Amino acid sequence: MSEPTSRSSEPLDQLKTHLAEAADLQSAAAVLSWDQETFMPEGGAAARSRQLSTLQRLAHEAFTRDAVGALLDDLASPAEDGAPTDGTAALVRVTRRDYERARKVPSALVARLAQASSEAKQAWKAARADDDFDAFAPHLERLITLSREKAEALGYEDTPYDALLEEYEPGTRTADVAPLFETLREELVPLVEAIAEAEQVDDACLHGDFAPDAQQQAGEEVIRAFGYDFQRGRQDRSAHPFTTAFSTGDVRLTTRFDPQFFGTGFFATLHEAGHGLYEQGVADDLERTPLAEGASLGLHESQSRLWENLVGRSRAFWRWYLPRLRERFPQQLGSVTEDAFYRAANKVEPSLIRVEADEVTYNLHVMLRFEIERALIEGRLAVEDLPGRWNAAMDDALGVVPESDANGVLQDVHWAMGAFGYFPTYTLGTLMSVPLFRQAEADLGGLDEQIAQGEFGPLLSWLRTHIHRHGRKLQAADLLARVTGEPLSAQPWVDYVRKKFGAIYGL
Amino acid sequence: MSEPTSRSSEPLDQLKTHLAEAADLQSAAAVLSWDQETFMPEGGAAARSRQLSTLQRLAHEAFTRDAVGALLDDLASPAEDGAPTDGTAALVRVTRRDYERARKVPSALVARLAQASSEAKQAWKAARADDDFDAFAPHLERLITLSREKAEALGYEDTPYDALLEEYEPGTRTADVAPLFETLREELVPLVEAIAEAEQVDDACLHGDFAPDAQQQAGEEVIRAFGYDFQRGRQDRSAHPFTTAFSTGDVRLTTRFDPQFFGTGFFATLHEAGHGLYEQGVADDLERTPLAEGASLGLHESQSRLWENLVGRSRAFWRWYLPRLRERFPQQLGSVTEDAFYRAANKVEPSLIRVEADEVTYNLHVMLRFEIERALIEGRLAVEDLPGRWNAAMDDALGVVPESDANGVLQDVHWAMGAFGYFPTYTLGTLMSVPLFRQAEADLGGLDEQIAQGEFGPLLSWLRTHIHRHGRKLQAADLLARVTGEPLSAQPWVDYVRKKFGAIYGL
Repeated sequence: MSEPTSRSSEPLDQLKTHLAEAADLQSAAAVLSWDQETFMPEGGAAARSRQLSTLQRLAHEAFTRDAVGALLDDLASPAEDGAPTDGTAALVRVTRRDYERARKVPSALVARLAQASSEAKQAWKAARADDDFDAFAPHLERLITLSREKAEALGYEDTPYDALLEEYEPGTRTADVAPLFETLREELVPLVEAIAEAEQVDDACLHGDFAPDAQQQAGEEVIRAFGYDFQRGRQDRSAHPFTTAFSTGDVRLTTRFDPQFFGTGFFATLHEAGHGLYEQGVADDLERTPLAEGASLGLHESQSRLWENLVGRSRAFWRWYLPRLRERFPQQLGSVTEDAFYRAANKVEPSLIRVEADEVTYNLHVMLRFEIERALIEGRLAVEDLPGRWNAAMDDALGVVPESDANGVLQDVHWAMGAFGYFPTYTLGTLMSVPLFRQAEADLGGLDEQIAQGEFGPLLSWLRTHIHRHGRKLQAADLLARVTGEPLSAQPWVDYVRKKFGAIYGL
Repeated sequence: MSEPTSRSSEPLDQLKTHLAEAADLQSAAAVLSWDQETFMPEGGAAARSRQLSTLQRLAHEAFTRDAVGALLDDLASPAEDGAPTDGTAALVRVTRRDYERARKVPSALVARLAQASSEAKQAWKAARADDDFDAFAPHLERLITLSREKAEALGYEDTPYDALLEEYEPGTRTADVAPLFETLREELVPLVEAIAEAEQVDDACLHGDFAPDAQQQAGEEVIRAFGYDFQRGRQDRSAHPFTTAFSTGDVRLTTRFDPQFFGTGFFATLHEAGHGLYEQGVADDLERTPLAEGASLGLHESQSRLWENLVGRSRAFWRWYLPRLRERFPQQLGSVTEDAFYRAANKVEPSLIRVEADEVTYNLHVMLRFEIERALIEGRLAVEDLPGRWNAAMDDALGVVPESDANGVLQDVHWAMGAFGYFPTYTLGTLMSVPLFRQAEADLGGLDEQIAQGEFGPLLSWLRTHIHRHGRKLQAADLLARVTGEPLSAQPWVDYVRKKFGAIYGL
């Protein structure tokens, strides 16, 4: 009685009926989570947590039904012959992968992980507020233990970290990621040192009184020009910016504003709009299936970084937008030149907090998290040694050491959520953004001139065609190689930052 | 695999596990509906409708499982011996009633009704916009046919209308309601005529420039004083005001403002807050069960009408609040006297639109809807004759005739939703509000003086104790009789309007 009835005798239709039920439950959970972060009064927290838990359990149950497996078996043979972007073949392939993964983890372990991460998240908030790592340590221990159990249940060839990374970046292995970070370390550590010795950039023009409502209007003017469709989305405020999709017709952004610093809210808006454009661009006919979202967190991040950095922090962009922004903030920006603003928006400075880091130092923050979490999962680092390792790694990579664990090892929520394997996707996406942008330039020509005119249609259209519309039909690495003709490497991005920041800092 | 697992061997715990799943799904649907009416971009409509349909189907399936019936059987005997407000006895009693009702309607009929009302709602919007009753008529025909089928499936003694009324006012029958409307007709028609011949009230002070944000602040100041808890709720804007609860800790109001008329938004805010106070006052230990909401739509309306009219349109209220409101609108209200404002807020005038009607004429609007929908369901009135009947009834009851169906028979959404039997609850609630308020006065004493001081704590506390906390443990009529010592009659309310409006109009 609890399974949806389908009158069709076609296995594909039957499969889609099950998938639609799971997708609707997941979308409902996404609405409830969005509301929790934006508008929910605090009195709603306890019930909301129970409601989310019920929806997630039911979505999992709908997706992992025996009937889904049987239908996938029925559909497997003909489908596997199709082209990799053929609809049915891709649906069966991706659904099977998700299904097998979901069935491998015992539901008791799923429940224990959910419970442990819920408790850990509360403990983390308190520990960060009190700068008390020891209060968080036992929760972290438990999450590491459970995550290792999960990795064992999922299976892996080289390292348990692979099994966890697969969750966020399907098809990518630790052995693919580690060499990228090695290159980044070799290239970036000396670059950061060279920048530190050069004449420093003055970003005073970004600091001052910037009314949040006026900031929001500026951000929305820009992302509307990018092509973000406010008929199919909206922007609200939350403590931490995020993007969430309830369907391709309803993709929502959130952001936050610092009334004394223009950079925080503006670039966060562009960043989230990059995610939003991806979700708005997924083909409608993938709706209510596992294909109807971005291919991976890494590829998602390539879109947000592309719009935030390659477009939004480019000189061409500010040629277009600074005159408009001056009209919104005449007192603050009336006398600021394009060159001064461009340099301010690209100031490099080693700092303690990842989410505030500039383009150059950002990947070093990610690198040390990748190395540390990998060591934790592989049992090469004990939780009690974590703060010391963190501080030493910060000193090695960036030459700065946090004065407190609150601004150090406790700054990110990811580990408190049991999200081991998530961090590297930030760097993978950043690295992907450059070859994608270069390929768009090669195909389209004149991107800089278009951006300087506020013409973003050709770029968006190119991304729609080559990336967005495919959803999860192809794995990120395959899609990237298909589009750019090359596998992912760190070099294009390294060349980009060397050139851009070499010019800014006169290296 | 789809049913929640319970390790407890206690039937009550097992029952609660099933009910909690159904309640969580219903709460999730309520969040999605709230979002749809407040913030959802238009592009989200199609997917949202599918998501709501899935959640409602799953909630229905969870609630009507065979296992629920078996557990109710297990629990029935000892429970039936308990006191009527005993927790377990009431839970079993109310759940069994809902369960049997839900199982009687075939799911194919539920689906056809949902589909037909979804289509009818769209058609009604267009028909109202185009003033084209004929375009809506076939949809209404279909909904009447399906509603009769539903009534047959549910069963009834006297009239199929009873089976439908039961949905909104459990335990109340057409034979209980009809005499109340007879009394109202006899009393109100001459009263309205007498008022029409008296010196008219000038409500010019309520018209003018009233900025919506300032209106909202005023409304929130008042409902906060009433005791509405913004830590457990919030107020947003929507096309039509409503109240919805996701838990007792998250009860949300919506309202709308007319920038040129103070009355619309202010009294709607007080009205919705009355609903909200009821939901915020339901005992926490009823959460996630069928008991965790108001006892009936009528009793709910008694709370909204009590705060809107008996408090909010009283002279004592304006003694307290007008000086505060003058500070918010010094230009508009600086020179308006308490007497003038009180009279303006109570202006009586026969009009075409129910939701804009004053206290005296309101019940006549409801009366004609009750009589018409009962005749439609009983087969005594054909859809083609509906506009003529409507206009004649308006002329009889109120002495005004709509110049268009848009302002006449097409004005309300209820019939387009298939909600036959809903309208009388508006009047039932209005009638209940007076004996409840009188009993509160008898128990507490000095209510008028408290209201004139802005002291609403004793009144709210009395309502909490006698009404709110019980949720659905008792049926509305029983609860009312228990609290006031008398069954519901129209006389107390008639006496109240005769006295109040006799004084205002010098009758």
